[in-house]
Amino acid sequence: MQKIIGVIGGSFVEQKYLDLAFEVGRLLAQKDIIIVCGGLGGVMEAVCKGASENDGLTVGLLPASDIKMANPYVKIPLATGMGSARNKIIVESSQALIAIAGAYGTLSEIALALDTGKKVIGLGTWDIPGVIKAGSAKEAVNLVLE
Amino acid sequence: MQKIIGVIGGSFVEQKYLDLAFEVGRLLAQKDIIIVCGGLGGVMEAVCKGASENDGLTVGLLPASDIKMANPYVKIPLATGMGSARNKIIVESSQALIAIAGAYGTLSEIALALDTGKKVIGLGTWDIPGVIKAGSAKEAVNLVLE
Amino acid sequence: MQKIIGVIGGSFVEQKYLDLAFEVGRLLAQKDIIIVCGGLGGVMEAVCKGASENDGLTVGLLPASDIKMANPYVKIPLATGMGSARNKIIVESSQALIAIAGAYGTLSEIALALDTGKKVIGLGTWDIPGVIKAGSAKEAVNLVLE
Amino acid sequence: MQKIIGVIGGSFVEQKYLDLAFEVGRLLAQKDIIIVCGGLGGVMEAVCKGASENDGLTVGLLPASDIKMANPYVKIPLATGMGSARNKIIVESSQALIAIAGAYGTLSEIALALDTGKKVIGLGTWDIPGVIKAGSAKEAVNLVLE
Repeated sequence: MQKIIGVIGGSFVEQKYLDLAFEVGRLLAQKDIIIVCGGLGGVMEAVCKGASENDGLTVGLLPASDIKMANPYVKIPLATGMGSARNKIIVESSQALIAIAGAYGTLSEIALALDTGKKVIGLGTWDIPGVIKAGSAKEAVNLVLE
Repeated sequence: MQKIIGVIGGSFVEQKYLDLAFEVGRLLAQKDIIIVCGGLGGVMEAVCKGASENDGLTVGLLPASDIKMANPYVKIPLATGMGSARNKIIVESSQALIAIAGAYGTLSEIALALDTGKKVIGLGTWDIPGVIKAGSAKEAVNLVLE
Repeated sequence: MQKIIGVIGGSFVEQKYLDLAFEVGRLLAQKDIIIVCGGLGGVMEAVCKGASENDGLTVGLLPASDIKMANPYVKIPLATGMGSARNKIIVESSQALIAIAGAYGTLSEIALALDTGKKVIGLGTWDIPGVIKAGSAKEAVNLVLE
Repeated sequence: MQKIIGVIGGSFVEQKYLDLAFEVGRLLAQKDIIIVCGGLGGVMEAVCKGASENDGLTVGLLPASDIKMANPYVKIPLATGMGSARNKIIVESSQALIAIAGAYGTLSEIALALDTGKKVIGLGTWDIPGVIKAGSAKEAVNLVLE
């Protein structure tokens, strides 16, 4: 069975984090890992783009009921219609997670992940005890798959 | 963007419904349709098997937190940990649905789908006003994609 | 601990069903039963009004995030922001349920309740195997508390 | 309409935080505020006890389907059966929140609350930008109702 890794992060972040997310998407796709994310813009779009350009499989769990909210690089957009309760599904569905920058929504996902004992690798994200910091996309991918 | 069709139905059903589900999975996969289902046994397993043997893409939205509950033919098992609240996500994520036999869980999904105006094709399932009856797997697939 | 009974039914129903719902609310309140419902209009508003005028305690589990969607007779409006996934919470929270008229949303709740083995008393609602039919508000309340 | 305040915090915390939670429950009940919480032990039980001894109204949104998981001081135990997805409902249902100590579950609730712009008052809890720190139960209650 293929591994499933969650990639979480903000909709509005600096370009350097979008670059990191793209690179994470590329690396995970090249290792044939399924990516689960929130399906919207920013980090979510960048990671899907990186995966998409490398034939990766991406799932976007959208907060709204409207599939049109998905970024154009999501392969499988799933419209939950449950608002931010979908954050929990992203976390539950992932075997481990990479968090890139992000605001309160990302923080809620980090907390839910750590609450269930899941590994969370951080790239320029919230400095919460339990998050394992990585210095590059490559290191983040290596750490999350260890 | 690929179409996403939900296939719903019971865990414990007669062999003839498993055969129908397998055939529905085969036909949808051959048309390059993504299948969303509940990820468990019975109809869900049969439709995933039919799709899997034809290189189809299947998503299993599991009620539990444990990915090991997924049937072996689910390509992307997503553990929601939300119990039967995941029924709503199956419905929301699907552009239209095929219901095959099934008990009360399936009925709740049919009702949620009709409540949001989604098309539901029925194969030996609950006789609810609004469900469009099909006589074969082929007819069901044709009707759901119309 | 006080009993918790769910009362489910449509937003748009004939006057006779509103009268039944009002009466169910009155009878449950007089027996000091907590009522859980969907918090909106129609049957939900009528049952809350009947309870409210008899010092009953009512909980309205709203689909939206906005508490202002609650009918004016809900004592405790809880805004779930989860859309119709809140149907499941109404069902899970109730020890048994009374269904009055209603459309597909009500049908989904009936199905979810029967799926978990909960007792459902019906007043002019969907004719689903497992629903126990009552002929009056009084009979419905007696049956649901048996 | 009565105000609804969420009180969140850990199941396993030091006695001083239980004392704070009890006092918060007492003060909110005396002001006729409805308290929403997670319905389990620790901070959740202490705040319900404080409210209960002052005729307060408390709602416990339980993660499990089993109402027996509720602490004995919850007036209205609602079994969501949705696991930690119920954290979001606690947050959505509250007009503002008081967070007392707590671990990752509490952090997820703080983050979800701040994400939707809700006021969060903190008593010995996570030091997250946006949380307004209080030095006593009385100050927390005053701040949350401002």
